[in-house]
Amino acid sequence: MTTPIRVTVWNEGRHEQTHDAVKAVYPNGMHTVIADYLNGQPGITARTATLDMPEHGLTEEVLANTDVLTWWGHVAHDEVDDAIIERVAQRVWDGMGIIFLHSAHFSKMFKRLMGTSCQLKWREANEKERLWVVDPTHPIAAGLGDYFELPHEEMYGEMFDIPVPDQLVFISWFQGGEVFRSGCCFTRGKGKIFYFRPGHETHPTYYDANVQRVIGNAVRWATPPQNSVVIASPCYQALEPLE
Amino acid sequence: MTTPIRVTVWNEGRHEQTHDAVKAVYPNGMHTVIADYLNGQPGITARTATLDMPEHGLTEEVLANTDVLTWWGHVAHDEVDDAIIERVAQRVWDGMGIIFLHSAHFSKMFKRLMGTSCQLKWREANEKERLWVVDPTHPIAAGLGDYFELPHEEMYGEMFDIPVPDQLVFISWFQGGEVFRSGCCFTRGKGKIFYFRPGHETHPTYYDANVQRVIGNAVRWATPPQNSVVIASPCYQALEPLE
Amino acid sequence: MTTPIRVTVWNEGRHEQTHDAVKAVYPNGMHTVIADYLNGQPGITARTATLDMPEHGLTEEVLANTDVLTWWGHVAHDEVDDAIIERVAQRVWDGMGIIFLHSAHFSKMFKRLMGTSCQLKWREANEKERLWVVDPTHPIAAGLGDYFELPHEEMYGEMFDIPVPDQLVFISWFQGGEVFRSGCCFTRGKGKIFYFRPGHETHPTYYDANVQRVIGNAVRWATPPQNSVVIASPCYQALEPLE
Amino acid sequence: MTTPIRVTVWNEGRHEQTHDAVKAVYPNGMHTVIADYLNGQPGITARTATLDMPEHGLTEEVLANTDVLTWWGHVAHDEVDDAIIERVAQRVWDGMGIIFLHSAHFSKMFKRLMGTSCQLKWREANEKERLWVVDPTHPIAAGLGDYFELPHEEMYGEMFDIPVPDQLVFISWFQGGEVFRSGCCFTRGKGKIFYFRPGHETHPTYYDANVQRVIGNAVRWATPPQNSVVIASPCYQALEPLE
Repeated sequence: MTTPIRVTVWNEGRHEQTHDAVKAVYPNGMHTVIADYLNGQPGITARTATLDMPEHGLTEEVLANTDVLTWWGHVAHDEVDDAIIERVAQRVWDGMGIIFLHSAHFSKMFKRLMGTSCQLKWREANEKERLWVVDPTHPIAAGLGDYFELPHEEMYGEMFDIPVPDQLVFISWFQGGEVFRSGCCFTRGKGKIFYFRPGHETHPTYYDANVQRVIGNAVRWATPPQNSVVIASPCYQALEPLE
Repeated sequence: MTTPIRVTVWNEGRHEQTHDAVKAVYPNGMHTVIADYLNGQPGITARTATLDMPEHGLTEEVLANTDVLTWWGHVAHDEVDDAIIERVAQRVWDGMGIIFLHSAHFSKMFKRLMGTSCQLKWREANEKERLWVVDPTHPIAAGLGDYFELPHEEMYGEMFDIPVPDQLVFISWFQGGEVFRSGCCFTRGKGKIFYFRPGHETHPTYYDANVQRVIGNAVRWATPPQNSVVIASPCYQALEPLE
Repeated sequence: MTTPIRVTVWNEGRHEQTHDAVKAVYPNGMHTVIADYLNGQPGITARTATLDMPEHGLTEEVLANTDVLTWWGHVAHDEVDDAIIERVAQRVWDGMGIIFLHSAHFSKMFKRLMGTSCQLKWREANEKERLWVVDPTHPIAAGLGDYFELPHEEMYGEMFDIPVPDQLVFISWFQGGEVFRSGCCFTRGKGKIFYFRPGHETHPTYYDANVQRVIGNAVRWATPPQNSVVIASPCYQALEPLE
Repeated sequence: MTTPIRVTVWNEGRHEQTHDAVKAVYPNGMHTVIADYLNGQPGITARTATLDMPEHGLTEEVLANTDVLTWWGHVAHDEVDDAIIERVAQRVWDGMGIIFLHSAHFSKMFKRLMGTSCQLKWREANEKERLWVVDPTHPIAAGLGDYFELPHEEMYGEMFDIPVPDQLVFISWFQGGEVFRSGCCFTRGKGKIFYFRPGHETHPTYYDANVQRVIGNAVRWATPPQNSVVIASPCYQALEPLE
């Protein structure tokens, strides 16, 4: 038996408390929907954490026992403590995977790891999004066909100010005329990062079977590497004789 | 139970017949050593094929039942039939993984998939090679440390005329003063490709534990993707109304 | 004074002879329109060549005096002589830039350099294409804004079966619901390659100011590198003492 | 006449004041040597700035009139004001090129833009470094051959903790047995970034003709893009009718 992948599903969790429209879609918070899906997958065990918990639920102990962290935030990016941001960054560099969902593109955490402004065009018009697979060799596209659709989503459009992704898995088409790099892979240190675009809080996106499948695939892909490569700055003795 | 990954280990197999020094190292051919290692791995089943078999052992039936093909060749690249080259290329585009070992860099098969001249500097001086891991997030580096060494190998040096690799896993240091991109990932169609540098026929390289581990990792990484993305050129009906 | 960039604009040139609709748009062939634009640019001098010329107009002498070649073909890909394909490939590896336009995606020449099937979805429905800039640092996007539009074009859709581009400059949105990686950079040997999607023969695409600008930018970008790196396979003497 | 590229050569400038060995090599600071070289190049005009100037010499006015900034720092990374770091980052995102030299790998500025720990192995043993060109199509390699050597340098070794470079131009071989990705290109926003390894303060590296040539090439390559792509987060009106 291999040990299960330990996921922590992190959510800002504010919209679900303050907006009736969001509460109607996600009465127990979108983190619960995501965690429930993941807990139904073989080889994955998920728990949740939210902004309003002590240390935002991201204690040293929680992170030490997290293989992959998922992150959703929107209105309270600035309330995330800088010390927690640094703690999570360190854990990513040490190998923890991290998956950023939708409006987490503008979180302190994503910006910290990207080094860019992370800006983009946006529009709330309940329009159609169609996500096309452009890398059919990538494990994050497992189980999908040429594309999948979401009938109603917020629009995000290019120019999306991110570093060039190491791998680009999805490109979105929007009804209103824009495109977007919707599934982007990066590495930082020994950690793998996936940005996945869909998930506006007023739409039932995290109940969608394809969206769930992608999140599950991304969790498996982002699981920490098993090697003993050391990331450090040692004064290093020569391996060959130097006269 | 998941079904095992079906590997075909292909070898030109000429040096083992004609050179005593090679015969001494690989009495049953280097393909046998590689296949024996892979057959000892859980979840992998390997068979062998060689140039001198009918259709080089790469019949439609064999390829249809191969998830990952490994390829070693050197003195008889030109004897590989062009029709077989096209058959294997088609199977790679359909999703079969392929791993090119050492002097296979100059095979018809590798050149066919790369679109470059695949030239490089070389020297047979039994010198030391040290392979450094430069992507510790990559599954092909699983189980390794910062580097591993081979006490005696042929030198391959830059400029290695390949397309820019999608992922670069290893860089080699050579005692004589050169460097080399030693572990390079590519995709073609739905197929994953890995080029792995070591493996000169007069050295016991394929008995080396680290080399074997890398080949096993590469086999697991290159296993065909599970999706229904269609690669074809259909006249495609619009998904949205066009006036 | 720097010497001008010497461009050869190559065109299959058949549609312009046989289809009245194409003749009406490009009475002197689309190669003439492209070459006229380039000849109006400072620092560029362009001539033309077509399939029906001896050696397709791509003699050793012409290629030796070409810094950047542009390529358009559609109905007669198979009529291009294999020896010319190999001659052009060798010249690309030696440093000549090459720009593939529209249906040249399915030319022998492009396939030879890519190593993939180069398939894609397509539709002739005179629909709108909008090309979004996704790499604003790239010289090929010089002079553009966030996007530009073509009111009537053929649709090309993903999955476009190419190797992962080294740089992705444009992504197209199509009215009928598809997306496409429309501006893709590659290298092969010392040569730079740009694939640019627009240019269906029945539309006046090559008169479009933005399309012309991109082609001019691509010519400047693809100009051969000035260095003395040698791509060859020498038996190479050690640079360091080997005991 | 095209307007010259305006370069600001920034130097921490402490070693030159406090270490006699460094003072002996760079009596007027290494920034002066670099700026003198650049000022001798056609189409480039360079000035200098140092840590100990007001606002570290990087005022809003200076940055607004800088096309490309070069950065060298070592012992006083922490003394760089965070507000200046953010100011420079914003200017990079707006299009200013930035070139990081040697120990600037561990500067606040580089870390801010990379999002990684930027750690590496190191050793001061006056050993030989040989930089191999692995991308002969890249403008930063203009004028070089297969490799160039520095007889005495500090060693930097992998694993270098950076994001995967967009383009890898050089790989270094070190006498003591290590390799290093020595010339790495990135983009952040509309700005281009080049990391160039050589330049230990006790060696006359910045007088070396090849090193100077690379810095000049990098300046030309990193010059801001000329386009009107907007990086911002507007609520964006649909370009197509939405019912």
